[in-house]
Amino acid sequence: MANNSESHMKVLRLPTIKRLPTYLHILKRFELEGNEYVSTTALINELDFKPILVRKDLVLLGLAGKPRIGYKLKELIAAIESYLGWNKTDEAFLIGAGSLGQALMGHKSFEENGLKIIAGFDADPAKTGQKFHGKNIFPMEKLPELIERMGVRVAIMTVPWQEAQVIADTLVEAGIWGIWNFSMVKLKTPPHVVCHNENLSSGLAVFSVRLRKMYQQKK
Amino acid sequence: MANNSESHMKVLRLPTIKRLPTYLHILKRFELEGNEYVSTTALINELDFKPILVRKDLVLLGLAGKPRIGYKLKELIAAIESYLGWNKTDEAFLIGAGSLGQALMGHKSFEENGLKIIAGFDADPAKTGQKFHGKNIFPMEKLPELIERMGVRVAIMTVPWQEAQVIADTLVEAGIWGIWNFSMVKLKTPPHVVCHNENLSSGLAVFSVRLRKMYQQKK
Repeated sequence: MANNSESHMKVLRLPTIKRLPTYLHILKRFELEGNEYVSTTALINELDFKPILVRKDLVLLGLAGKPRIGYKLKELIAAIESYLGWNKTDEAFLIGAGSLGQALMGHKSFEENGLKIIAGFDADPAKTGQKFHGKNIFPMEKLPELIERMGVRVAIMTVPWQEAQVIADTLVEAGIWGIWNFSMVKLKTPPHVVCHNENLSSGLAVFSVRLRKMYQQKK
Repeated sequence: MANNSESHMKVLRLPTIKRLPTYLHILKRFELEGNEYVSTTALINELDFKPILVRKDLVLLGLAGKPRIGYKLKELIAAIESYLGWNKTDEAFLIGAGSLGQALMGHKSFEENGLKIIAGFDADPAKTGQKFHGKNIFPMEKLPELIERMGVRVAIMTVPWQEAQVIADTLVEAGIWGIWNFSMVKLKTPPHVVCHNENLSSGLAVFSVRLRKMYQQKK
């Protein structure tokens, strides 16, 4: 717990962490456009977040911006990537090659962001043997063997909730350390396994409430 | 601003709104299993959120639970759906039928949750004329005409960020009121249009940070 990036880990709160990928995306765009520095104001102009939050987040990242010039893009990008661990890449298996699973396999930004899906697994014989976005789909029976043989530590679960716990048990037993769970059910996993639940309808809920308020104003 | 559901709109904060879809999913599962009531404890057992948050959220929804019996499932489900506006269905167009767009068209829970994607649009002639998950893909040129003719008010944008603003302008001009934007760029829209930005990598950021902490512990 000595170096800088580890002390950051203690400071950043969840809402800040969730904003980091958006900052990163915009900063990389600025870099591609040939810029060397970015001012806080220029960053804020591209964002939908409250300016005060962005200013605070940048301070928390612990870099010193230069007055009237701003932050060195390369340093700011490196600080965010190192905090998120996106400067290294984890290989992952995807379990459940339905429509959501296939989309995640084709979502290029995950691979740019430290998570490379190297293969998929499905119980449906019509899917196994196929390739989606260049990735092979294997039958579920192969899962334990391939986890061990390839040393994969991360799994993404896009299976129906009814099947999720049994699959999670298999993953943990075979040596998986982290599960990104889209299956809409709380999984029981041992404390040494990170299980992160995702619900795609959370964003829809916020959108729906904002829409409903607006409809009421139009009446 | 007289009735109950509208006064709720003033009270619920963003983190609560984001948890509502998860509650709803579990409550509907309880109902399917033949239950009439749900206790707060039973709900908490199925959730990954802090119990104190769940208790607070339920109080904020404004229903009275019975001691030792709990909440009437039907009433709790109705309260959440009515708050979110998911008791009515909005029809939506999806713009950009790439891998993410196709997955959203096939994601059944949106339709259960008040948002029905009725058609897709794409600039790629290889995609137009096709059907994904039973939904037609039309060329972009048809967008203004079909928005007007079908009275659609909601659009989901899954296009590359470089093209997003031009398409948003077209949508607004044709009469769209709400845009759910997956395009990783802040859109300029007039105040009468609700524009909600989504970044799929936010969840990955939280997962990555939790994974990185765990890797450090294992060292």
